[in-house]
Amino acid sequence: MFPTDPVSNLAALIRCPSVTPAEGGALSALEAMLGPLGFKVDRVVAKEAGTPDIENLYARIGTDGPHLMFAGHTDVVPVGDEAAWSHPPFSATIADGEMYGRGAVDMKGGIACFVAAVGRHIAKHGAPKGSISFLITGDEEGPAINGTVKLLDWAAESGERWDACLVGEPTNPESLGDMIKIGRRGSLSGRITVHGVQGHAAYPHLADNPVRGILQLTRALMDPPFDNGTENFQPSNLEVTTIDVGNAAVNVIPAKASAAFNIRFNDRWTAESLIAEIVARLDRAAADGALRPGRAPVKYDIVWNERPSHVFLTRNNALIDSLSGAVEAVTGRRPQLSTTGGTSDARFIKDYCPVVEFGLVGKTMHMVDERVALADLDTLTGIYETFIARWFGHVTA
Amino acid sequence: MFPTDPVSNLAALIRCPSVTPAEGGALSALEAMLGPLGFKVDRVVAKEAGTPDIENLYARIGTDGPHLMFAGHTDVVPVGDEAAWSHPPFSATIADGEMYGRGAVDMKGGIACFVAAVGRHIAKHGAPKGSISFLITGDEEGPAINGTVKLLDWAAESGERWDACLVGEPTNPESLGDMIKIGRRGSLSGRITVHGVQGHAAYPHLADNPVRGILQLTRALMDPPFDNGTENFQPSNLEVTTIDVGNAAVNVIPAKASAAFNIRFNDRWTAESLIAEIVARLDRAAADGALRPGRAPVKYDIVWNERPSHVFLTRNNALIDSLSGAVEAVTGRRPQLSTTGGTSDARFIKDYCPVVEFGLVGKTMHMVDERVALADLDTLTGIYETFIARWFGHVTA
Ligand SMILES: [Zn+2]
Ligand SMILES: [Zn+2]
Repeated sequence: MFPTDPVSNLAALIRCPSVTPAEGGALSALEAMLGPLGFKVDRVVAKEAGTPDIENLYARIGTDGPHLMFAGHTDVVPVGDEAAWSHPPFSATIADGEMYGRGAVDMKGGIACFVAAVGRHIAKHGAPKGSISFLITGDEEGPAINGTVKLLDWAAESGERWDACLVGEPTNPESLGDMIKIGRRGSLSGRITVHGVQGHAAYPHLADNPVRGILQLTRALMDPPFDNGTENFQPSNLEVTTIDVGNAAVNVIPAKASAAFNIRFNDRWTAESLIAEIVARLDRAAADGALRPGRAPVKYDIVWNERPSHVFLTRNNALIDSLSGAVEAVTGRRPQLSTTGGTSDARFIKDYCPVVEFGLVGKTMHMVDERVALADLDTLTGIYETFIARWFGHVTA
Repeated sequence: MFPTDPVSNLAALIRCPSVTPAEGGALSALEAMLGPLGFKVDRVVAKEAGTPDIENLYARIGTDGPHLMFAGHTDVVPVGDEAAWSHPPFSATIADGEMYGRGAVDMKGGIACFVAAVGRHIAKHGAPKGSISFLITGDEEGPAINGTVKLLDWAAESGERWDACLVGEPTNPESLGDMIKIGRRGSLSGRITVHGVQGHAAYPHLADNPVRGILQLTRALMDPPFDNGTENFQPSNLEVTTIDVGNAAVNVIPAKASAAFNIRFNDRWTAESLIAEIVARLDRAAADGALRPGRAPVKYDIVWNERPSHVFLTRNNALIDSLSGAVEAVTGRRPQLSTTGGTSDARFIKDYCPVVEFGLVGKTMHMVDERVALADLDTLTGIYETFIARWFGHVTA
């Protein structure tokens, strides 16, 4: 039987407790849906020293182009306070027209709908006029080391090439049809440590209080703003996420102070140009005497503590219009084309093909009582089905 | 035999391991010196729930005025890395003209010299023309709860009244005769906590980063300066001694940030007027939009975390001139009249009588290899003896 019902697809997926890094049966459940549709399914285990092995899945139907990829993840975040859930988090209980369960919207729901949409497309049109593939990881919510990056590597080495990708993450803030993501800001993090000279609070001239230095440096990171936004992006924004000294003795000037920061940056910057700007700001602030009159420049070091996420913007109109048109055709609403929010695995996929993102309403993601309206599952399946038809040219706008 | 030799007095005291809160035999050793001189000695044990009992000593010779008090402590700080000492820290070893030992300068040395000076005075002039007392605590280096404050209370309740006090703490930065302390800055400490709203670094508008608030508030504490100093005092100075957030997640905006500060303030301020100024600065900074454009004022609270030390300045010329004249008569140097440095128990004594401070050279205090030149012990004894003679009117300036 074709898996054309998103509700039963999703129930099957939610019932698999696939909290990262556990597969939990979720990929097997997905494989069981895709097999009958004619997909060739590969289960790809990714390994790296020091991290748990992760199961991933790649499935394709068709051998020719054009080739459309659907990308996502079956792993979910922990349930949190299980006792606080209205219904058990892996029960897929339906109540008042909503299905409850961890992953309902992030993003087993998106997968369930896309599977149903492909099923309906094949039922209506036969095999696609080209290829459709699923690139599904079990490591999106975790360290993401054995996930999408390695699966893309594996597929590309196997000769896979794609013309476009739809990521099924929840993109709608309030209701289905609000927002398509056509790009993402970059993200860059670092930690600054200021080295001072310890001493007694009554003899500050014999010491060099690193708190003065860290205040000068962190302020320079926040003020002035990095930019005022660009055509497609909101302004870049930096948050100092912690300052740590840990000095319990109120009469003692400490030896060291450190601060960590994260910046979400737009296409005014590359990671490289942004690092240069940040270092220039820090060097200027280190030499500023405002809080340290007559002192030598602040001694500091900086560690960039993760590989940056690069900013990207998708400019493929055929892809964007197919999706946007499908949303409008089904919901009657023209979705906003947005680049806001956090990073997603789209930042890896964009190196292989144009990528857009559209899924369910994200409101309850990662929360207790994560849930999805059954009506939304039906609507999203309709949108996905219409998108597939448009992208493969069954419907012209 | 009269204890007129400061070197043997000091050796006896150093050999008592009186690390706070242990009496270590030091007060008994002192009692053994004062008895033969004709002092009436009281051993006063002070108690308070949650702190160790502390032994203190009060001794007086004479029944009439004028009444001169010598104040100090026999407790010492821990020895630190004992293996790093050139000679065992409680051995009172003499090498190259210096005596080694914990407390050598802070301040068993000062006590040893004053005892010797009183011995020489009595040997020369007989009983003093008035009264001399020793007010010696075993809790100066510790929490100071069961020390000078309670001993002063006890003595005052016993009917004791004083006309002047000399505290024997080490006051000389480089060499004997450098500096008399005639007052002390006040000290005030507090901790500010800023309450923000936790969130994700990619959605700062949904959160309220308390780091922004704590930066605004702490900067306002440091800039502009509180004053430019006064006739007798250096400028007031505030140090932010710690900032603590403790957020390990680089993508998370934390909920709370706190900072502690200590201010050393001069006689431009009282503790009360300073608290009012600090609160006014914090309230202005909380409303400042520089780092938080368009936001409501920073939500913060402040806890004043110790009883403040009040600033004081001694204006008793007879006392200051007796001491200053004695230093000049013995060393040929006119000492600086200073109010610099940390607080001392003089801040408690000043409520009972005018108080000045003069003792040994402080360079090695609290350090490994704390030590005193034997020549300095002799010189300080001479200064103290001359001071006593002048103060009681045996010598006129
Ligand atoms: Zn997700
Ligand atoms: Zn001392």
